[in-house]
Amino acid sequence: MKKIQVAIIMGSVSDTEVAKKTCRALKDLKISHEVLVASAHRTPEFLYLKISQFERSGVKVYIAIAGMAAHLGGVIASLTVKPVIAVPIGGKMMGLDSMLSTVQMPPGVPLAVVAIDGGKNAAILSAQILAVADKTIAKRLADLRKKDADKIQRQNKGLKKLV
Amino acid sequence: MKKIQVAIIMGSVSDTEVAKKTCRALKDLKISHEVLVASAHRTPEFLYLKISQFERSGVKVYIAIAGMAAHLGGVIASLTVKPVIAVPIGGKMMGLDSMLSTVQMPPGVPLAVVAIDGGKNAAILSAQILAVADKTIAKRLADLRKKDADKIQRQNKGLKKLV
Amino acid sequence: MKKIQVAIIMGSVSDTEVAKKTCRALKDLKISHEVLVASAHRTPEFLYLKISQFERSGVKVYIAIAGMAAHLGGVIASLTVKPVIAVPIGGKMMGLDSMLSTVQMPPGVPLAVVAIDGGKNAAILSAQILAVADKTIAKRLADLRKKDADKIQRQNKGLKKLV
Amino acid sequence: MKKIQVAIIMGSVSDTEVAKKTCRALKDLKISHEVLVASAHRTPEFLYLKISQFERSGVKVYIAIAGMAAHLGGVIASLTVKPVIAVPIGGKMMGLDSMLSTVQMPPGVPLAVVAIDGGKNAAILSAQILAVADKTIAKRLADLRKKDADKIQRQNKGLKKLV
Amino acid sequence: MKKIQVAIIMGSVSDTEVAKKTCRALKDLKISHEVLVASAHRTPEFLYLKISQFERSGVKVYIAIAGMAAHLGGVIASLTVKPVIAVPIGGKMMGLDSMLSTVQMPPGVPLAVVAIDGGKNAAILSAQILAVADKTIAKRLADLRKKDADKIQRQNKGLKKLV
Amino acid sequence: MKKIQVAIIMGSVSDTEVAKKTCRALKDLKISHEVLVASAHRTPEFLYLKISQFERSGVKVYIAIAGMAAHLGGVIASLTVKPVIAVPIGGKMMGLDSMLSTVQMPPGVPLAVVAIDGGKNAAILSAQILAVADKTIAKRLADLRKKDADKIQRQNKGLKKLV
Amino acid sequence: MKKIQVAIIMGSVSDTEVAKKTCRALKDLKISHEVLVASAHRTPEFLYLKISQFERSGVKVYIAIAGMAAHLGGVIASLTVKPVIAVPIGGKMMGLDSMLSTVQMPPGVPLAVVAIDGGKNAAILSAQILAVADKTIAKRLADLRKKDADKIQRQNKGLKKLV
Amino acid sequence: MKKIQVAIIMGSVSDTEVAKKTCRALKDLKISHEVLVASAHRTPEFLYLKISQFERSGVKVYIAIAGMAAHLGGVIASLTVKPVIAVPIGGKMMGLDSMLSTVQMPPGVPLAVVAIDGGKNAAILSAQILAVADKTIAKRLADLRKKDADKIQRQNKGLKKLV
Repeated sequence: MKKIQVAIIMGSVSDTEVAKKTCRALKDLKISHEVLVASAHRTPEFLYLKISQFERSGVKVYIAIAGMAAHLGGVIASLTVKPVIAVPIGGKMMGLDSMLSTVQMPPGVPLAVVAIDGGKNAAILSAQILAVADKTIAKRLADLRKKDADKIQRQNKGLKKLV
Repeated sequence: MKKIQVAIIMGSVSDTEVAKKTCRALKDLKISHEVLVASAHRTPEFLYLKISQFERSGVKVYIAIAGMAAHLGGVIASLTVKPVIAVPIGGKMMGLDSMLSTVQMPPGVPLAVVAIDGGKNAAILSAQILAVADKTIAKRLADLRKKDADKIQRQNKGLKKLV
Repeated sequence: MKKIQVAIIMGSVSDTEVAKKTCRALKDLKISHEVLVASAHRTPEFLYLKISQFERSGVKVYIAIAGMAAHLGGVIASLTVKPVIAVPIGGKMMGLDSMLSTVQMPPGVPLAVVAIDGGKNAAILSAQILAVADKTIAKRLADLRKKDADKIQRQNKGLKKLV
Repeated sequence: MKKIQVAIIMGSVSDTEVAKKTCRALKDLKISHEVLVASAHRTPEFLYLKISQFERSGVKVYIAIAGMAAHLGGVIASLTVKPVIAVPIGGKMMGLDSMLSTVQMPPGVPLAVVAIDGGKNAAILSAQILAVADKTIAKRLADLRKKDADKIQRQNKGLKKLV
Repeated sequence: MKKIQVAIIMGSVSDTEVAKKTCRALKDLKISHEVLVASAHRTPEFLYLKISQFERSGVKVYIAIAGMAAHLGGVIASLTVKPVIAVPIGGKMMGLDSMLSTVQMPPGVPLAVVAIDGGKNAAILSAQILAVADKTIAKRLADLRKKDADKIQRQNKGLKKLV
Repeated sequence: MKKIQVAIIMGSVSDTEVAKKTCRALKDLKISHEVLVASAHRTPEFLYLKISQFERSGVKVYIAIAGMAAHLGGVIASLTVKPVIAVPIGGKMMGLDSMLSTVQMPPGVPLAVVAIDGGKNAAILSAQILAVADKTIAKRLADLRKKDADKIQRQNKGLKKLV
Repeated sequence: MKKIQVAIIMGSVSDTEVAKKTCRALKDLKISHEVLVASAHRTPEFLYLKISQFERSGVKVYIAIAGMAAHLGGVIASLTVKPVIAVPIGGKMMGLDSMLSTVQMPPGVPLAVVAIDGGKNAAILSAQILAVADKTIAKRLADLRKKDADKIQRQNKGLKKLV
Repeated sequence: MKKIQVAIIMGSVSDTEVAKKTCRALKDLKISHEVLVASAHRTPEFLYLKISQFERSGVKVYIAIAGMAAHLGGVIASLTVKPVIAVPIGGKMMGLDSMLSTVQMPPGVPLAVVAIDGGKNAAILSAQILAVADKTIAKRLADLRKKDADKIQRQNKGLKKLV
């Protein structure tokens, strides 16, 4: 059985569109991952169970995707010393609630917060973390960065006649 | 041994000044209570242990006092169906972080949020909850309200010469 | 005649969709309730009349649903020492106006504020308050929490192939 | 007995410094006024009583000075069709709470909101309202405006050597 | 020629929908008014000309309707000591820009700010100001308030079956 | 008589500390300038007079320094097609009011907004504008930038033993 | 080959609609310009290359159009002492992120920030800067201002029957 | 020579107090690090030089500490695919400017943002990243977490007599 390197936990199925962006980017970077729904508020026991399983199985990075009063990342971070990336989800308050709920962690228990709905960047950050000790992933990240740069160069070709 | 009706949990000792306001008001209302520090992020196990003890001992209302990314109330609420009152603590972001971290709870797991640093109101709200089934407390609350009103009347006497 | 336990007051008929969520959840929890429109600003006398009727008839918890400069909860709280839950309504300012208008109550007269448009959580919080002295409701709340958790477990089954 | 034209109501004695600015400006403009503390939340009955007395005695403009969830102006406005000026008070949330609590009034019941801690402007606005039918006050307002302008001209004299 | 009591100035034709609400309410209250577009930034001379005409013709209240960096009200207020009501217009920043641009006037030159897009309340506030010296308008305002209250009472009839 | 290139207008003498930073930087860059107090709200006529004098005398850039509902920059911009730089002043609302009052100008009449209390940057931006047609100033700006860079290099020397 | 006076750099092709407004206004003002996509984050080397080319070719003003954490303007400003205008782009956070990312530049390296999505004003501001040393452009700006004013006058004709 | 694992870059010497917290925590965790001042705006070339040196020397994690329009983290992230942690610095806007300037990074180039002034958490997060491939550091992090928990337990002893 292939070992999971990145565990992606959504606080609600309504976060699936953002989680898809994470999964797609991890797939492109060939990083093994698993995604599940587990709410810090509605399924605390299931969440603790899953985190303890992930810890035993050697998961290396966690990604917590949650909106509103987004406590998911904080609860995961309280149960592990692995890096926990948090993706705040936009909504009725344009993501201000979930952003502040994840960025403002107290001294001792950090979260690594990325942009609102930033599912892709969570994947890339997790890859950057794994790449610290894995040159193959580092190479893929450098390639991806180059591909992004090339795309922008091509876009410039189409701009000639803006008005 | 006197049974505890209200459990007050602070996320950090730095919240003590606000917790004092809660304790003082509960003492005035003759409501048994206990106060402790337990961090959702730094002492998750101790917090779960305490909540499960409180649940068994018949605590009726919880008050969570926490600042920054204030997950304490949410974590307590995930472990009980008792009412959980949350007091957001002001700080570098004037309490906007802790307020949004507690008000914006997802459907199914409410918190009862009071004002920033509103330690006294948390006590009074817990008393109002207990008073639903306890006429003595209801009486004390009505008296307290009257006392507040009388105080304002007296203050008007001193205003005669404002300029 | 069945006695009303929870009185739900909307500041405007435009709040009906949120009030429906409250009524539906209270119905599921078998808690007697009544819903009406009464504006703190446009019908102060009618509001005072209704609150005084509710007080005499033994209503146990109030839920105030209002948007913009949401004074409804504060006015109700000024007329009773029963617990008053406030639901801020989103709108042109994404609920920031109604949230701050309800959370920031002065010492002595608390409101129990839930999430923006959080009609369901207002119902559950009112049930939690009643459950302090009513084990049947406490049981229903525990069941509801379990149902929510089971639903999340089932959702995980459908996630296998996210990308 | 001199008739009161402007009634100034503070929600709390802690608003006295701002109220002083209002009283001083009204005194300078020779406009009769009365100031009192009456809380929308803690002394609703006293507030209704005072407003009904003011209404009978022919008060022409109300000024409500309040902080936090500032409902005072709204409650007064619900009891009269006279103009009600609201002064939001700054505090832990830099006045954002009291500003939104007063500006965002629903259609039908306006408040005339001035700047945070803007006690002087509330006085001037009330004078402007009275001046609509009172040329003496209009004259005094024009004089005051001129005095302010002259003061700025004089200040320019002292600026010659800024660095 | 009928004399104009209320001058309504919009900063842009895009504010017409809000101005319509003002005109409609003034028409219902039988208050003479005139509406025009005049930008503080794009037509300063035309604006000064119109204000000086209005001043000579005895306009009693101004209503400034403007969005974004809404300087219109402030510029009008700098040219008159008549009451100037400001209506902030919502937009890309949900009205926060126009609200702060009008509420936060410096000591000496107040604006009377109403809710975002609050065209109707601007009309009612102007009527309240005129009513200080005009009992007929005061009567119409009281009638309007009563009509609003009656409407809410009727709405309660339709609520019987909310779920 | 030396011709003035940059006119600095403060809305209030309380803005002097920020204006000093502007004057000092302009002096260092050897750019002729004049500073005065002129309020858009309290001295509109004086302001129009000064702007028309500045226009005739060939002022090239305006700097408007103002706080709260900062209309000064907008009013100047309405009277000239010269570049107008606006410096929002911090205060009770941490500069959010003056920032939004200046940044959000409508299409056709721009302001060039710099940081809150950013008196020095206003000076540098005005120099950059003048430098478009003046190589001596361009040279001085490049030197200043180099000096800033050198200063940072020197600061690194002192950091060796941070803990 | 016609020399480019204004270089417009977008951080992403998604900013094209705003850039079009800039190009259209510059075309109307007959100011030579070039537009390209270059991301501060994804194509730093390409950006440095382009800026150094622009510097050598004598570009006089830069316009940086970018959203979210908009670093583009700041990076350009770090590489030149020419004036750099920044246009914050609205988005999930209504432009608050890109506005603060550009307005709050540190002392020494200013940006000239215009309104959110303010592509047209960026063009006009760049023209105002060029006009400091170019009377033809100054004349065109004055004409444009007059045209805007005339348009508003014509709009007033259509307002006669607002309700 | 001991190899540097974590490079800490401050945008200004005024960030030293926060950087000290980072250095102290890294020292406690026995992680080699270097701290320097390098401004994205004032010393771009020095910054690029240092990053390219760090890249060659095998630095594994970057920590960028900056306030206001905090572009430092973004510029570093544009030059490396190593993880870059950003610490927003509080100030006149309570850190909202630097937080949004770092959290809202575009897809492809993430930053790992921690709390405002969160120098200690940046250190711990960098250690968590290194610990993915270094069990000794993982052990130290677990010990540190335990120490924090024990400290809270001891604090409870002192709480007995809160009122």
